[in-house]
Amino acid sequence: MHINFPTQIELLSAAQSLTEHWSPRVVAQVNDQYVKVAKLLGQLAWHDHSGEDELFLVLSGRLRIEYRDQPPVELAVGSIHVVPRGVQHNPVAEQECLIALIEPIATRHTGDVATDRTRGINEQLRAIA
Amino acid sequence: MHINFPTQIELLSAAQSLTEHWSPRVVAQVNDQYVKVAKLLGQLAWHDHSGEDELFLVLSGRLRIEYRDQPPVELAVGSIHVVPRGVQHNPVAEQECLIALIEPIATRHTGDVATDRTRGINEQLRAIA
Repeated sequence: MHINFPTQIELLSAAQSLTEHWSPRVVAQVNDQYVKVAKLLGQLAWHDHSGEDELFLVLSGRLRIEYRDQPPVELAVGSIHVVPRGVQHNPVAEQECLIALIEPIATRHTGDVATDRTRGINEQLRAIA
Repeated sequence: MHINFPTQIELLSAAQSLTEHWSPRVVAQVNDQYVKVAKLLGQLAWHDHSGEDELFLVLSGRLRIEYRDQPPVELAVGSIHVVPRGVQHNPVAEQECLIALIEPIATRHTGDVATDRTRGINEQLRAIA
């Protein structure tokens, strides 16, 4: 069952309208994946998603994805990067950064790690203000 | 089995480097979906994908998605639109338009319709020049 979303979404505007950091909102569904937008500042938490890849697209600012065993990936506006399933990573935004995410409907925000920033899917499905 | 892709992809540059219209190239995989870039001009063909949604993201120019029974959707840069599975549609670019696409690995370019513009997946997986 697909959720009813607006016909089209301007990703940057949708992300700009968010009022809270690290609180992704679902804006579209394509097959078994959600498209989300998020506003980031600082760092989230080291975590992984054991069975799910996660795609990042930077809409404004810069995003660094840190890895345990390899150099960080530094992403500028318009660039995408896929964090492979099962790989520990830590997203860091030195300054405010707006992103779009694509990940399976089943993906949990911070994997098996629970932090005070962890957002459940119902919260992510709330309409953007 | 995932294909080895570059660590990060600047979507607009990847699309700009294409030399042929209506010939999508795979640039990344996220779970069971491919991310593709394409350069469009004119129209492709009326078709549908019976079991698969298709996400369009406009990187430059404008894209119109025509539908049989509803008004067309006009997409500007930075906007996404999901064509639902099983719905006949026709992408039209009055002027050259660069896009990113997200669709399942199994999706066929023009659905059950074969045209001289139809590109098989092996062609879509070739490295961008």
